[in-house]
Amino acid sequence: MQFDSLDDIRAFCRDVPKGDVRFAEAAVRRQQNLTKPPGSLGRLEELAIWLAQWQGRESPRLDRVTITVFAGNHGVAARGVSAYPPEVTAQMVANFAAGGAAINQIARLAGADLRVVPIELDRPTRDFTMATAMDADDFLNAVEIGYRAVPEDCDLLAVGEMGIANTTSAAMLCAALIGGGAARWAGRGTGVDDEGLARKRAAIDAALDYHRGILLDPLAVAAALGGRELAGIAGAVLAARRHGIPVLLDGFVATSAVLPLAHLDAGALDHCRAGHVSAESGHRDLLRELGLAPLLDLDMRLGEASGAGLAILLMRAALACHAGMATFAEAGVCGADD
Amino acid sequence: MQFDSLDDIRAFCRDVPKGDVRFAEAAVRRQQNLTKPPGSLGRLEELAIWLAQWQGRESPRLDRVTITVFAGNHGVAARGVSAYPPEVTAQMVANFAAGGAAINQIARLAGADLRVVPIELDRPTRDFTMATAMDADDFLNAVEIGYRAVPEDCDLLAVGEMGIANTTSAAMLCAALIGGGAARWAGRGTGVDDEGLARKRAAIDAALDYHRGILLDPLAVAAALGGRELAGIAGAVLAARRHGIPVLLDGFVATSAVLPLAHLDAGALDHCRAGHVSAESGHRDLLRELGLAPLLDLDMRLGEASGAGLAILLMRAALACHAGMATFAEAGVCGADD
Repeated sequence: MQFDSLDDIRAFCRDVPKGDVRFAEAAVRRQQNLTKPPGSLGRLEELAIWLAQWQGRESPRLDRVTITVFAGNHGVAARGVSAYPPEVTAQMVANFAAGGAAINQIARLAGADLRVVPIELDRPTRDFTMATAMDADDFLNAVEIGYRAVPEDCDLLAVGEMGIANTTSAAMLCAALIGGGAARWAGRGTGVDDEGLARKRAAIDAALDYHRGILLDPLAVAAALGGRELAGIAGAVLAARRHGIPVLLDGFVATSAVLPLAHLDAGALDHCRAGHVSAESGHRDLLRELGLAPLLDLDMRLGEASGAGLAILLMRAALACHAGMATFAEAGVCGADD
Repeated sequence: MQFDSLDDIRAFCRDVPKGDVRFAEAAVRRQQNLTKPPGSLGRLEELAIWLAQWQGRESPRLDRVTITVFAGNHGVAARGVSAYPPEVTAQMVANFAAGGAAINQIARLAGADLRVVPIELDRPTRDFTMATAMDADDFLNAVEIGYRAVPEDCDLLAVGEMGIANTTSAAMLCAALIGGGAARWAGRGTGVDDEGLARKRAAIDAALDYHRGILLDPLAVAAALGGRELAGIAGAVLAARRHGIPVLLDGFVATSAVLPLAHLDAGALDHCRAGHVSAESGHRDLLRELGLAPLLDLDMRLGEASGAGLAILLMRAALACHAGMATFAEAGVCGADD
C-alpha cells in the first residue's frame, strides 16, 4: 500500500474489509457444544469468535504473534511536560534491543516476536503549541513505515509505543477530536509533578487555540498534533485490517493513535480490541468513547505494548479452550436440563 | 497436620505464619530500580512483592505451580436448584481426567500441574434445608483431604471446584455468615431458569431459618451448610499458609469456601489473591466483603479453577518482569528528572 496523500488514507478507511461473519457463526456453534454451560467462559468465548471472524478461518490460530513498538520524539517535550528527559526514548529503544525492558519479558512469555520501530528519533516533531508537529508528507511517511512493519502472515498483532512526552500528544488528539480540553485528558503520564502537569495542560490548551481551524479534520489533527510513533501505530492498524490480522491495542497513547481512524469510519477499529485499560487518567474515558471494553485492568501505565502483550496470554487461553475442549457428545457429559 | 476437631482448625487459624516482610521490602527495592517509571507496572509489581513475601524468598520462583480442583455432590441438588443433573459432577471429573475441559487447556498453557480431587461423589451431602449437610467428622475429613492434596514444595497454588448445585452452597455460606438472605447471594449459577432460581432462593431462606442457632459459628456453618469440595478448598488454603505457598482463589464457590477462615481470623487469607471476579452475581459483593481485589474480570462463571488458572499467567508475567528486567544502572537509562 502506498499512501501518497491524506485522501488515500480516507479512501482506504471507507473501503476496509468487513470480516467474515460466516467464520464467526461457525465459532459460535462450536462454543455452544463445548463442555461448559453456554457463555460461561465469558470474554474468552467472544475473543475466539472475534479471532475466527477477522482471521477468516474455521480454526483460528496463533502460530505467529507479533508485538510492534513504535518510538518517536516530541518537540513539546521542551515545554517540561514529562518527568523524564527526551534522551530516554533512545535509551529505552536500546534497552528493548538488549532485552532489558518489561516488554521483552512479556513478549517471551507470550510467545510473540517483538519488533521495535524507532522513527527518526534524532528529529523530534515540532512543538505543536506554535507549529504543526508534522507536515502531511512527514505524517504519511510515518504511517507508511507503520503499514510496512506488519508481517502479512501474522495471526495477531499487538501495538504499543515509546516516546517521552507522548501522553501529551495523546491527550492533545483526544482534546482535539473529542473535546473537553486539557482538563479532561491530561494525566500524569510517567509521573509528572503538579507543576509539570500544569505545563502539560497549558500546552494542550494553547495548541487547541492555535490549531482551532483544523479540529474537524481527523487526519490533519493526527499530523499537526500527534507524533511519528502514533502515526506508525495507525499505519500498522490499517495494514492489519487489510491482511486479516486482529489487533490488540495497548494503552492511552496507542488508543489515541487510532482515534482519527475511528473518526474517518465508525467501523475502522472493528478488528481491534483494547488489551487493557491504563491507569493514565484519560484512557478509560477514551475507550468508552470508542466503545472498546478493555480485557485487563491492572493499574498499569507503562506503554511499550505491555498491556496489549499481557492480553496475548488471554488470546492464547481463548484459543486453547476453543480448539482443545471436548464437546458434550465427545465427553459423554449431559447438557443443561437433559 | 491432623484436624481432629473443629477446635484444631480454630487453633490453627489463630497461629498461622504471617509472611516475611523483609522479603517484601527487598522486592520493593528491586522494583524501584527497574527500567520503568515507579509503579507503572501496577498490580504486576504488587504480585511480585506478594510472591516474595509469602514464599519467603529474595528471588521468588514459579517452577512448580499446582491447580487443584475439588469435586463434591450436594443433597440440595434434589431441590431443582441447578440447570444440570447431579451426574454431571462425575462426568466432568472424567472429562478432566481425559483432558477435555477448559481447565485442562488453561493448565497446560499456564504450565501448571492439574490435580483433581473428587471427594465421595457417590455420597452427596445431606439436603441442608432439613439437616446438616455434613456432621463434624465428615467435614473434618474433607478438610484433611484438602490439606494433604497440596504438595509442600509447590510455588503457587490455584484452587477451584466442580459440583452441581454448589453455587447454592456458596450463596448459603455467604447468607449465613454475612447476611442479606438469599436475595443478596443467590444467582443463576450454570444458568438456572427463573423457576429454578426461585427454588434456589427458597432453599437458602428455609435453611437460614432451620439452622438459625449456629450462624455465629463459622466452622459449624461450613459443615452444616457447605460441601465437601468447599471444605477441601479450605483445607488446601490452610496447608498453603503453613508451607509458604501463595494462593490464587477462583470464583464465587472457591471464595465462599474460605469465608469461614476469614471469620476465624482477619488475616487468614493474607496469602490469597482473587484470580478473577465471576459473572455469578454474588462474587463481586463477596470479594468486597473480604477486601480482595480481583486480578481479572472477564465475565466468566465456569468454576473448575478456570479464572484462577488464567491468573497464573499474570503471576508468570509479574515474575518475568521482576526477575528479568534491567535496572536503570544496568541499562544506562536516565531516571526521572535526572
